[in-house]
Amino acid sequence: MQYFLGVDGGGTGCRLRLSDASGRVLAEVSEGPANISTDLEGTLRNIIAGSQAALKAAGLPPSALERVSAGLGLAGVNISDSALWAGRLPFERARVVTDAWTSTRGALGESDGIVAAIGTGSVFASLRGGHYSQIGGWGFHLGDEGSGAVLGRMRLAATLRGVDGIAPLTPLGRATLADLGGAAALPGFAKDARPADYARLAPALFEDPDDPMAAAVLNTAAEDIAALIERLQEGSPLPVTWTGGLGLLWATRIGQRWPERAACGTALDGAMALAFSLREA
Amino acid sequence: MQYFLGVDGGGTGCRLRLSDASGRVLAEVSEGPANISTDLEGTLRNIIAGSQAALKAAGLPPSALERVSAGLGLAGVNISDSALWAGRLPFERARVVTDAWTSTRGALGESDGIVAAIGTGSVFASLRGGHYSQIGGWGFHLGDEGSGAVLGRMRLAATLRGVDGIAPLTPLGRATLADLGGAAALPGFAKDARPADYARLAPALFEDPDDPMAAAVLNTAAEDIAALIERLQEGSPLPVTWTGGLGLLWATRIGQRWPERAACGTALDGAMALAFSLREA
Repeated sequence: MQYFLGVDGGGTGCRLRLSDASGRVLAEVSEGPANISTDLEGTLRNIIAGSQAALKAAGLPPSALERVSAGLGLAGVNISDSALWAGRLPFERARVVTDAWTSTRGALGESDGIVAAIGTGSVFASLRGGHYSQIGGWGFHLGDEGSGAVLGRMRLAATLRGVDGIAPLTPLGRATLADLGGAAALPGFAKDARPADYARLAPALFEDPDDPMAAAVLNTAAEDIAALIERLQEGSPLPVTWTGGLGLLWATRIGQRWPERAACGTALDGAMALAFSLREA
Repeated sequence: MQYFLGVDGGGTGCRLRLSDASGRVLAEVSEGPANISTDLEGTLRNIIAGSQAALKAAGLPPSALERVSAGLGLAGVNISDSALWAGRLPFERARVVTDAWTSTRGALGESDGIVAAIGTGSVFASLRGGHYSQIGGWGFHLGDEGSGAVLGRMRLAATLRGVDGIAPLTPLGRATLADLGGAAALPGFAKDARPADYARLAPALFEDPDDPMAAAVLNTAAEDIAALIERLQEGSPLPVTWTGGLGLLWATRIGQRWPERAACGTALDGAMALAFSLREA
Protein backbone atom coordinates (compact mmCIF):
# COMPACT_ATOMS: atom_id res chain seq x y z
CA MET A 1 0.00 0.00 0.00
CA GLN A 2 1.36 3.43 -0.99
CA TYR A 3 0.63 6.60 1.01
CA PHE A 4 0.74 10.25 -0.03
CA LEU A 5 1.65 13.15 2.22
CA GLY A 6 1.33 16.87 1.55
CA VAL A 7 3.16 19.41 3.68
CA ASP A 8 2.25 23.11 3.65
CA GLY A 9 5.06 24.63 5.67
CA GLY A 10 5.22 28.25 6.79
CA GLY A 11 7.09 30.45 9.18
CA THR A 12 4.47 30.13 11.93
CA GLY A 13 3.48 26.48 11.52
CA CYS A 14 2.90 23.69 9.04
CA ARG A 15 -0.05 21.52 8.07
CA LEU A 16 0.23 17.94 6.86
CA ARG A 17 -2.35 15.76 5.09
CA LEU A 18 -2.03 11.99 4.56
CA SER A 19 -4.07 10.12 1.99
CA ASP A 20 -4.14 6.73 0.38
CA ALA A 21 -3.56 6.08 -3.31
CA SER A 22 -7.22 6.70 -4.12
CA GLY A 23 -6.98 10.22 -2.68
CA ARG A 24 -9.04 9.39 0.43
CA VAL A 25 -7.83 11.60 3.32
CA LEU A 26 -6.56 9.46 6.22
CA ALA A 27 -5.39 12.21 8.57
CA GLU A 28 -4.67 15.92 8.79
CA VAL A 29 -2.43 17.40 11.51
CA SER A 30 -0.64 20.62 12.43
CA GLU A 31 2.94 21.05 13.61
CA GLY A 32 5.41 23.83 14.46
CA PRO A 33 7.18 26.22 12.07
CA ALA A 34 8.89 25.11 8.87
CA ASN A 35 11.09 27.95 7.70
CA ILE A 36 14.10 26.25 6.16
CA SER A 37 16.19 29.39 5.83
CA THR A 38 15.98 30.37 9.51
CA ASP A 39 15.91 26.93 11.20
CA LEU A 40 16.78 23.88 9.09
CA GLU A 41 17.12 21.39 11.97
CA GLY A 42 13.88 22.52 13.63
CA THR A 43 12.08 22.31 10.30
CA LEU A 44 13.26 18.74 9.66
CA ARG A 45 12.24 17.79 13.23
CA ASN A 46 8.77 19.32 12.83
CA ILE A 47 8.18 17.65 9.46
CA ILE A 48 9.18 14.23 10.82
CA ALA A 49 7.13 14.67 14.02
CA GLY A 50 4.12 15.79 11.96
CA SER A 51 4.44 12.85 9.58
CA GLN A 52 4.54 10.38 12.47
CA ALA A 53 1.53 12.07 14.09
CA ALA A 54 -0.37 11.76 10.79
CA LEU A 55 0.45 8.04 10.50
CA LYS A 56 -0.62 7.48 14.11
CA ALA A 57 -3.90 9.38 13.57
CA ALA A 58 -4.51 7.14 10.53
CA GLY A 59 -3.85 4.01 12.61
CA LEU A 60 -0.67 3.19 10.70
CA PRO A 61 2.69 2.08 12.18
CA PRO A 62 5.75 4.41 12.06
CA SER A 63 7.35 2.03 9.56
CA ALA A 64 4.72 3.09 7.00
CA LEU A 65 6.87 6.20 6.46
CA GLU A 66 8.88 4.06 4.06
CA ARG A 67 5.85 3.79 1.80
CA VAL A 68 5.10 7.54 1.78
CA SER A 69 5.53 9.85 -1.21
CA ALA A 70 5.72 13.40 0.12
CA GLY A 71 5.22 16.77 -1.56
CA LEU A 72 6.54 19.64 0.52
CA GLY A 73 5.97 23.35 -0.05
CA LEU A 74 8.12 25.21 2.44
CA ALA A 75 8.80 28.85 3.30
CA GLY A 76 12.36 30.05 2.77
CA VAL A 77 13.28 27.24 0.40
CA ASN A 78 16.18 27.73 -1.93
CA ILE A 79 15.70 24.89 -4.38
CA SER A 80 19.41 24.53 -5.12
CA ASP A 81 20.20 24.17 -1.41
CA SER A 82 17.33 21.78 -0.77
CA ALA A 83 19.13 19.02 -2.67
CA LEU A 84 21.73 19.05 0.13
CA TRP A 85 19.31 18.24 2.95
CA ALA A 86 16.28 16.65 1.27
CA GLY A 87 18.08 13.30 1.57
CA ARG A 88 17.57 13.51 5.34
CA LEU A 89 13.79 13.26 4.95
CA PRO A 90 12.53 9.77 5.92
CA PHE A 91 10.11 9.28 3.01
CA GLU A 92 10.29 6.77 0.18
CA ARG A 93 10.09 9.66 -2.27
CA ALA A 94 10.01 13.39 -1.64
CA ARG A 95 9.98 16.60 -3.61
CA VAL A 96 10.55 20.01 -2.05
CA VAL A 97 9.34 23.27 -3.59
CA THR A 98 8.61 26.80 -2.38
CA ASP A 99 5.31 27.47 -0.61
CA ALA A 100 4.56 29.82 -3.53
CA TRP A 101 4.58 26.80 -5.88
CA THR A 102 2.16 24.76 -3.75
CA SER A 103 -0.12 27.80 -3.30
CA THR A 104 -0.19 28.31 -7.05
CA ARG A 105 -0.79 24.64 -7.83
CA GLY A 106 -3.53 24.53 -5.17
CA ALA A 107 -5.23 27.64 -6.50
CA LEU A 108 -5.12 26.55 -10.17
CA GLY A 109 -5.73 22.83 -9.85
CA GLU A 110 -4.97 21.05 -13.13
CA SER A 111 -5.32 24.18 -15.27
CA ASP A 112 -2.91 26.69 -16.64
CA GLY A 113 -3.35 30.14 -15.15
CA ILE A 114 -1.93 33.04 -13.21
CA VAL A 115 -2.13 33.50 -9.45
CA ALA A 116 -1.97 36.98 -7.93
CA ALA A 117 -1.33 36.29 -4.23
CA ILE A 118 -1.67 39.60 -2.38
CA GLY A 119 -1.73 39.81 1.40
CA THR A 120 0.74 41.50 3.73
CA GLY A 121 3.27 40.70 0.98
CA SER A 122 2.64 39.78 -2.64
CA VAL A 123 3.86 37.36 -5.28
CA PHE A 124 2.73 36.56 -8.83
CA ALA A 125 3.03 33.16 -10.47
CA SER A 126 1.89 31.26 -13.53
CA LEU A 127 1.52 27.68 -14.62
CA ARG A 128 1.68 27.26 -18.41
CA GLY A 129 1.92 23.78 -19.84
CA GLY A 130 3.17 22.55 -16.48
CA HIS A 131 5.93 25.19 -16.39
CA TYR A 132 5.98 27.31 -13.24
CA SER A 133 7.11 30.96 -13.31
CA GLN A 134 7.24 33.33 -10.37
CA ILE A 135 7.92 37.06 -10.33
CA GLY A 136 7.60 39.84 -7.74
CA GLY A 137 7.66 38.77 -4.12
CA TRP A 138 11.01 40.39 -3.35
CA GLY A 139 9.83 41.55 0.05
CA PHE A 140 8.58 44.71 1.65
CA HIS A 141 11.63 46.91 1.01
CA LEU A 142 12.30 46.10 -2.66
CA GLY A 143 9.04 44.81 -4.11
CA ASP A 144 5.81 43.20 -2.88
CA GLU A 145 3.85 45.39 -5.28
CA GLY A 146 0.25 46.11 -4.24
CA SER A 147 0.67 44.32 -0.92
CA GLY A 148 -0.88 45.52 2.30
CA ALA A 149 2.47 46.51 3.74
CA VAL A 150 3.46 48.52 0.67
CA LEU A 151 0.02 50.17 0.43
CA GLY A 152 0.16 51.16 4.10
CA ARG A 153 3.58 52.73 3.64
CA MET A 154 2.38 54.52 0.49
CA ARG A 155 -0.57 55.89 2.50
CA LEU A 156 1.77 57.41 5.11
CA ALA A 157 4.22 58.79 2.52
CA ALA A 158 1.33 60.36 0.56
CA THR A 159 -0.04 61.89 3.75
CA LEU A 160 3.32 63.55 4.42
CA ARG A 161 3.47 64.86 0.85
CA GLY A 162 0.11 66.44 1.68
CA VAL A 163 1.54 67.96 4.86
CA ASP A 164 4.46 69.38 2.83
CA GLY A 165 2.08 70.89 0.29
CA ILE A 166 3.30 68.99 -2.76
CA ALA A 167 0.10 66.90 -2.99
CA PRO A 168 -3.46 67.45 -1.73
CA LEU A 169 -3.98 66.76 1.97
CA THR A 170 -7.28 64.92 1.59
CA PRO A 171 -9.86 63.82 4.17
CA LEU A 172 -8.16 60.41 4.33
CA GLY A 173 -4.81 62.14 4.78
CA ARG A 174 -6.19 64.17 7.68
CA ALA A 175 -7.73 61.04 9.18
CA THR A 176 -4.35 59.30 8.88
CA LEU A 177 -2.68 62.10 10.84
CA ALA A 178 -5.40 62.04 13.50
CA ASP A 179 -5.17 58.26 13.89
CA LEU A 180 -1.38 58.19 14.25
CA GLY A 181 -0.84 61.28 16.39
CA GLY A 182 0.16 63.88 13.79
CA ALA A 183 2.87 64.23 11.18
CA ALA A 184 5.71 64.40 13.74
CA ALA A 185 4.74 60.92 15.00
CA LEU A 186 5.01 59.25 11.59
CA PRO A 187 8.81 58.85 11.33
CA GLY A 188 8.80 57.13 14.73
CA PHE A 189 6.01 54.80 13.61
CA ALA A 190 7.94 54.00 10.41
CA LYS A 191 11.18 53.37 12.27
CA ASP A 192 9.71 50.46 14.23
CA ALA A 193 6.88 49.30 11.95
CA ARG A 194 6.91 45.76 10.63
CA PRO A 195 5.09 44.85 7.40
CA ALA A 196 2.04 43.70 9.39
CA ASP A 197 1.84 47.10 11.11
CA TYR A 198 1.74 48.88 7.75
CA ALA A 199 -0.69 46.33 6.32
CA ARG A 200 -3.30 47.30 8.91
CA LEU A 201 -3.37 50.75 7.27
CA ALA A 202 -4.18 49.38 3.80
CA PRO A 203 -7.89 48.41 3.88
CA ALA A 204 -8.95 52.03 4.54
CA LEU A 205 -7.71 52.91 1.04
CA PHE A 206 -10.24 50.50 -0.49
CA GLU A 207 -13.00 51.69 1.83
CA ASP A 208 -12.61 55.28 0.64
CA PRO A 209 -11.47 54.85 -2.98
CA ASP A 210 -12.84 58.23 -4.13
CA ASP A 211 -10.61 60.14 -1.74
CA PRO A 212 -8.04 61.67 -4.13
CA MET A 213 -5.08 60.42 -2.06
CA ALA A 214 -6.52 56.89 -1.82
CA ALA A 215 -7.25 56.94 -5.55
CA ALA A 216 -3.69 58.04 -6.37
CA VAL A 217 -2.13 55.35 -4.17
CA LEU A 218 -4.43 52.63 -5.51
CA ASN A 219 -3.90 53.69 -9.14
CA THR A 220 -0.11 53.57 -8.75
CA ALA A 221 -0.21 50.17 -7.09
CA ALA A 222 -2.71 48.89 -9.67
CA GLU A 223 -0.30 49.74 -12.48
CA ASP A 224 2.50 47.94 -10.62
CA ILE A 225 0.30 44.84 -10.28
CA ALA A 226 -0.84 45.10 -13.91
CA ALA A 227 2.76 45.20 -15.18
CA LEU A 228 3.53 41.95 -13.34
CA ILE A 229 0.38 40.19 -14.56
CA GLU A 230 0.91 41.36 -18.16
CA ARG A 231 4.46 40.03 -17.96
CA LEU A 232 3.13 36.59 -16.97
CA GLN A 233 0.46 36.70 -19.69
CA GLU A 234 3.29 36.74 -22.25
CA GLY A 235 0.79 37.91 -24.81
CA SER A 236 -1.38 34.79 -24.62
CA PRO A 237 -4.11 35.37 -22.05
CA LEU A 238 -4.49 33.09 -19.04
CA PRO A 239 -7.19 33.55 -16.39
CA VAL A 240 -6.12 35.25 -13.17
CA THR A 241 -6.88 33.77 -9.74
CA TRP A 242 -6.76 36.29 -6.87
CA THR A 243 -5.74 34.99 -3.44
CA GLY A 244 -4.52 36.44 -0.14
CA GLY A 245 -6.11 38.89 2.25
CA LEU A 246 -6.28 41.71 -0.34
CA GLY A 247 -6.82 39.49 -3.38
CA LEU A 248 -10.60 40.00 -3.49
CA LEU A 249 -10.30 43.77 -3.01
CA TRP A 250 -7.87 44.01 -5.92
CA ALA A 251 -10.01 41.66 -8.04
CA THR A 252 -13.00 43.95 -7.50
CA ARG A 253 -10.94 46.97 -8.48
CA ILE A 254 -8.91 45.72 -11.46
CA GLY A 255 -9.89 42.09 -12.01
CA GLN A 256 -12.03 42.89 -15.05
CA ARG A 257 -8.89 43.63 -17.08
CA TRP A 258 -8.23 39.88 -17.48
CA PRO A 259 -10.31 36.71 -17.54
CA GLU A 260 -10.80 35.65 -13.94
CA ARG A 261 -11.15 32.30 -12.16
CA ALA A 262 -11.82 31.49 -8.51
CA ALA A 263 -9.21 29.54 -6.55
CA CYS A 264 -9.97 25.83 -6.61
CA GLY A 265 -7.88 24.82 -3.60
CA THR A 266 -5.34 25.64 -0.95
CA ALA A 267 -1.57 25.30 -0.65
CA LEU A 268 -2.16 21.97 1.10
CA ASP A 269 -4.12 20.78 -1.94
CA GLY A 270 -1.14 21.86 -4.04
CA ALA A 271 1.24 19.88 -1.82
CA MET A 272 -0.98 16.81 -2.20
CA ALA A 273 -0.93 17.23 -5.99
CA LEU A 274 2.87 17.36 -5.82
CA ALA A 275 2.93 14.18 -3.73
CA PHE A 276 0.69 12.39 -6.26
CA SER A 277 3.00 13.50 -9.07
CA LEU A 278 5.62 11.21 -7.47
CA ARG A 279 3.35 8.16 -7.87
CA GLU A 280 5.11 5.20 -9.49
CA ALA A 281 4.28 4.92 -13.16
CA MET B 1 31.94 91.89 28.34
CA GLN B 2 29.40 89.73 26.46
CA TYR B 3 30.29 86.38 24.91
CA PHE B 4 28.59 84.40 22.13
CA LEU B 5 28.46 80.63 21.84
CA GLY B 6 27.32 78.52 18.92
CA VAL B 7 26.52 74.83 19.38
CA ASP B 8 26.19 72.44 16.41
CA GLY B 9 24.85 69.30 18.07
CA GLY B 10 24.45 65.97 16.33
CA GLY B 11 23.89 62.35 17.16
CA THR B 12 27.59 61.47 17.06
CA GLY B 13 29.08 64.60 18.65
CA CYS B 14 28.77 68.36 18.96
CA ARG B 15 31.00 71.30 18.13
CA LEU B 16 31.03 74.57 20.05
CA ARG B 17 32.51 77.97 19.10
CA LEU B 18 32.96 80.91 21.48
CA SER B 19 33.46 84.44 20.26
CA ASP B 20 33.47 87.95 21.68
CA ALA B 21 31.00 90.65 20.72
CA SER B 22 33.12 91.69 17.75
CA GLY B 23 32.86 88.20 16.28
CA ARG B 24 36.47 87.27 17.02
CA VAL B 25 36.69 83.51 17.67
CA LEU B 26 38.07 82.82 21.18
CA ALA B 27 37.84 79.03 21.18
CA GLU B 28 36.42 76.05 19.31
CA VAL B 29 35.96 72.64 20.98
CA SER B 30 34.29 69.25 20.38
CA GLU B 31 32.19 67.28 22.84
CA GLY B 32 30.09 64.10 22.93
CA PRO B 33 26.68 63.48 21.32
CA ALA B 34 23.79 65.89 21.55
CA ASN B 35 20.66 64.05 20.51
CA ILE B 36 17.94 65.50 22.70
CA SER B 37 15.31 62.94 21.74
CA THR B 38 17.39 59.87 22.71
CA ASP B 39 19.39 61.26 25.70
CA LEU B 40 18.29 64.58 27.21
CA GLU B 41 20.43 64.38 30.36
CA GLY B 42 23.56 63.35 28.47
CA THR B 43 23.01 66.14 25.96
CA LEU B 44 22.68 68.79 28.68
CA ARG B 45 25.82 67.40 30.35
CA ASN B 46 27.80 67.48 27.10
CA ILE B 47 26.69 71.02 26.25
CA ILE B 48 27.65 72.31 29.71
CA ALA B 49 30.99 70.46 29.67
CA GLY B 50 31.74 71.77 26.18
CA SER B 51 30.87 75.34 27.17
CA GLN B 52 33.18 75.19 30.18
CA ALA B 53 35.95 73.72 28.03
CA ALA B 54 35.52 76.58 25.55
CA LEU B 55 35.71 79.20 28.30
CA LYS B 56 38.83 77.55 29.73
CA ALA B 57 40.47 77.40 26.28
CA ALA B 58 39.72 81.12 25.94
CA GLY B 59 41.30 81.86 29.34
CA LEU B 60 37.99 82.83 30.89
CA PRO B 61 36.65 81.79 34.31
CA PRO B 62 33.63 79.40 34.60
CA SER B 63 31.56 82.29 35.92
CA ALA B 64 31.73 83.89 32.46
CA LEU B 65 28.95 81.46 31.46
CA GLU B 66 26.57 84.01 32.96
CA ARG B 67 27.57 86.47 30.25
CA VAL B 68 27.11 84.01 27.35
CA SER B 69 24.38 84.20 24.72
CA ALA B 70 24.10 80.77 23.14
CA GLY B 71 22.55 79.59 19.88
CA LEU B 72 22.02 75.84 19.78
CA GLY B 73 21.11 73.72 16.77
CA LEU B 74 20.46 70.21 18.01
CA ALA B 75 19.49 66.88 16.43
CA GLY B 76 16.19 65.42 17.57
CA VAL B 77 14.83 68.72 18.83
CA ASN B 78 11.11 69.14 19.19
CA ILE B 79 10.77 72.89 19.60
CA SER B 80 7.62 72.66 21.73
CA ASP B 81 9.35 70.30 24.17
CA SER B 82 12.55 72.34 24.28
CA ALA B 83 10.78 75.06 26.29
CA LEU B 84 10.50 72.53 29.12
CA TRP B 85 14.25 71.93 29.52
CA ALA B 86 15.95 74.95 27.93
CA GLY B 87 15.67 76.68 31.33
CA ARG B 88 18.24 74.20 32.64
CA LEU B 89 20.93 75.62 30.37
CA PRO B 90 23.39 77.81 32.33
CA PHE B 91 23.61 80.67 29.82
CA GLU B 92 22.46 84.27 30.22
CA ARG B 93 20.37 83.86 27.08
CA ALA B 94 19.80 80.80 24.90
CA ARG B 95 17.78 79.81 21.89
CA VAL B 96 17.35 76.21 20.76
CA VAL B 97 16.47 75.20 17.20
CA THR B 98 16.79 72.08 15.02
CA ASP B 99 20.14 71.33 13.41
CA ALA B 100 18.34 71.75 10.07
CA TRP B 101 17.74 75.40 10.96
CA THR B 102 21.38 76.12 11.84
CA SER B 103 22.56 74.27 8.70
CA THR B 104 20.23 76.39 6.59
CA ARG B 105 21.22 79.66 8.26
CA GLY B 106 24.89 78.72 7.94
CA ALA B 107 24.57 77.84 4.26
CA LEU B 108 22.62 80.99 3.38
CA GLY B 109 24.29 83.56 5.58
CA GLU B 110 22.24 86.77 5.70
CA SER B 111 20.39 86.10 2.44
CA ASP B 112 17.05 84.57 1.63
CA GLY B 113 17.35 81.29 -0.22
CA ILE B 114 16.64 77.59 -0.38
CA VAL B 115 18.88 74.82 0.92
CA ALA B 116 18.70 71.32 -0.58
CA ALA B 117 20.59 69.19 1.96
CA ILE B 118 21.04 65.76 0.42
CA GLY B 119 23.24 63.10 1.96
CA THR B 120 22.26 59.72 3.38
CA GLY B 121 18.93 61.42 4.14
CA SER B 122 17.53 64.65 2.72
CA VAL B 123 15.70 67.77 3.84
CA PHE B 124 14.70 70.97 2.07
CA ALA B 125 14.44 74.37 3.74
CA SER B 126 14.01 78.03 2.91
CA LEU B 127 14.62 81.37 4.57
CA ARG B 128 12.38 84.13 3.17
CA GLY B 129 12.28 87.47 4.96
CA GLY B 130 13.64 85.75 8.07
CA HIS B 131 10.89 83.12 8.00
CA TYR B 132 12.16 79.51 8.08
CA SER B 133 10.25 76.70 6.32
CA GLN B 134 11.27 73.05 6.17
CA ILE B 135 9.74 70.25 4.11
CA GLY B 136 10.73 66.69 3.27
CA GLY B 137 13.11 65.00 5.66
CA TRP B 138 10.57 62.46 6.93
CA GLY B 139 13.14 59.69 7.01
CA PHE B 140 14.20 56.77 4.90
CA HIS B 141 10.91 54.83 4.93
CA LEU B 142 8.46 57.66 4.19
CA GLY B 143 10.45 60.41 2.48
CA ASP B 144 14.08 61.58 2.18
CA GLU B 145 13.55 62.17 -1.53
CA GLY B 146 16.70 61.94 -3.64
CA SER B 147 18.83 60.86 -0.67
CA GLY B 148 21.60 58.29 -0.92
CA ALA B 149 19.60 55.76 1.06
CA VAL B 150 16.51 56.13 -1.11
CA LEU B 151 18.55 56.06 -4.34
CA GLY B 152 20.33 52.89 -3.23
CA ARG B 153 17.03 51.20 -2.47
CA MET B 154 15.61 52.36 -5.82
CA ARG B 155 18.67 50.86 -7.55
CA LEU B 156 18.00 47.47 -5.99
CA ALA B 157 14.26 47.56 -6.66
CA ALA B 158 14.87 48.56 -10.29
CA THR B 159 17.39 45.73 -10.67
CA LEU B 160 14.77 43.23 -9.49
CA ARG B 161 12.21 44.66 -11.92
CA GLY B 162 14.83 43.92 -14.55
CA VAL B 163 15.20 40.36 -13.28
CA ASP B 164 11.42 39.95 -13.44
CA GLY B 165 11.33 41.22 -17.01
CA ILE B 166 9.10 44.25 -16.41
CA ALA B 167 11.97 46.69 -17.02
CA PRO B 168 15.27 46.45 -18.89
CA LEU B 169 18.04 44.59 -17.07
CA THR B 170 20.81 47.01 -17.95
CA PRO B 171 24.61 46.75 -17.55
CA LEU B 172 24.33 48.55 -14.20
CA GLY B 173 21.56 46.15 -13.16
CA ARG B 174 23.77 43.16 -14.01
CA ALA B 175 26.68 44.77 -12.13
CA THR B 176 24.38 45.26 -9.13
CA LEU B 177 23.51 41.57 -9.13
CA ALA B 178 27.16 40.57 -9.46
CA ASP B 179 28.23 42.89 -6.61
CA LEU B 180 25.59 41.68 -4.17
CA GLY B 181 25.60 37.96 -4.94
CA GLY B 182 22.62 37.60 -7.27
CA ALA B 183 18.91 38.37 -7.11
CA ALA B 184 18.21 35.79 -4.39
CA ALA B 185 20.63 37.63 -2.06
CA LEU B 186 18.88 40.99 -2.36
CA PRO B 187 15.92 40.42 0.02
CA GLY B 188 18.40 39.35 2.73
CA PHE B 189 20.50 42.47 2.13
CA ALA B 190 17.37 44.63 2.33
CA LYS B 191 16.15 42.96 5.51
CA ASP B 192 19.21 44.08 7.47
CA ALA B 193 20.34 47.16 5.55
CA ARG B 194 20.49 50.49 7.31
CA PRO B 195 20.22 53.77 5.38
CA ALA B 196 24.03 54.07 5.26
CA ASP B 197 24.26 50.60 3.66
CA TYR B 198 21.88 51.62 0.88
CA ALA B 199 23.58 55.00 0.51
CA ARG B 200 26.82 53.30 -0.50
CA LEU B 201 24.98 52.01 -3.59
CA ALA B 202 23.93 55.49 -4.74
CA PRO B 203 27.07 57.12 -6.26
CA ALA B 204 27.29 54.43 -8.98
CA LEU B 205 24.05 55.83 -10.43
CA PHE B 206 25.71 59.20 -11.03
CA GLU B 207 28.87 57.56 -12.37
CA ASP B 208 26.91 55.76 -15.07
CA PRO B 209 24.04 58.17 -15.77
CA ASP B 210 23.48 56.96 -19.35
CA ASP B 211 22.67 53.44 -18.22
CA PRO B 212 18.91 53.28 -18.83
CA MET B 213 18.20 51.97 -15.32
CA ALA B 214 20.38 54.64 -13.69
CA ALA B 215 18.72 57.29 -15.86
CA ALA B 216 15.23 56.12 -14.88
CA VAL B 217 16.06 56.09 -11.16
CA LEU B 218 17.76 59.50 -11.30
CA ASN B 219 14.94 61.03 -13.36
CA THR B 220 12.31 59.83 -10.88
CA ALA B 221 14.28 61.13 -7.91
CA ALA B 222 15.02 64.41 -9.72
CA GLU B 223 11.29 65.03 -10.15
CA ASP B 224 10.74 64.31 -6.45
CA ILE B 225 13.45 66.83 -5.54
CA ALA B 226 12.11 69.37 -8.04
CA ALA B 227 8.60 69.16 -6.55
CA LEU B 228 9.98 70.00 -3.11
CA ILE B 229 12.14 72.89 -4.37
CA GLU B 230 9.29 74.32 -6.47
CA ARG B 231 7.07 74.18 -3.41
CA LEU B 232 9.59 76.27 -1.46
CA GLN B 233 9.97 78.71 -4.36
CA GLU B 234 6.32 79.64 -3.86
CA GLY B 235 6.35 81.17 -7.29
CA SER B 236 8.99 83.81 -6.47
CA PRO B 237 12.43 82.41 -7.28
CA LEU B 238 15.12 82.11 -4.62
CA PRO B 239 18.60 80.74 -5.30
CA VAL B 240 19.23 77.13 -4.31
CA THR B 241 22.24 76.08 -2.21
CA TRP B 242 23.16 72.41 -2.46
CA THR B 243 24.74 70.74 0.58
CA GLY B 244 25.37 67.22 1.86
CA GLY B 245 27.33 64.35 0.40
CA LEU B 246 25.18 64.15 -2.76
CA GLY B 247 24.40 67.87 -3.02
CA LEU B 248 27.07 68.60 -5.61
CA LEU B 249 26.11 65.56 -7.73
CA TRP B 250 22.48 66.69 -7.80
CA ALA B 251 23.50 70.30 -8.49
CA THR B 252 25.48 69.15 -11.52
CA ARG B 253 22.50 67.14 -12.74
CA ILE B 254 19.53 69.45 -12.08
CA GLY B 255 20.94 72.62 -10.50
CA GLN B 256 20.56 74.62 -13.70
CA ARG B 257 16.77 74.61 -13.28
CA TRP B 258 17.04 77.31 -10.61
CA PRO B 259 19.43 80.12 -9.75
CA GLU B 260 22.22 78.62 -7.71
CA ARG B 261 24.45 79.89 -4.92
CA ALA B 262 27.34 78.19 -3.10
CA ALA B 263 27.05 77.57 0.64
CA CYS B 264 28.60 80.44 2.57
CA GLY B 265 29.08 78.61 5.87
CA THR B 266 28.49 75.63 8.09
CA ALA B 267 25.92 74.69 10.70
CA LEU B 268 28.29 76.08 13.33
CA ASP B 269 28.28 79.42 11.51
CA GLY B 270 24.49 79.24 11.61
CA ALA B 271 24.55 78.58 15.35
CA MET B 272 26.83 81.61 15.84
CA ALA B 273 24.41 83.76 13.84
CA LEU B 274 21.61 82.54 16.11
CA ALA B 275 23.68 83.44 19.18
CA PHE B 276 24.35 86.96 17.82
CA SER B 277 20.63 87.41 17.17
CA LEU B 278 20.22 87.31 20.97
CA ARG B 279 22.53 90.33 21.40
CA GLU B 280 21.07 93.02 23.63
CA ALA B 281 19.65 95.90 21.64
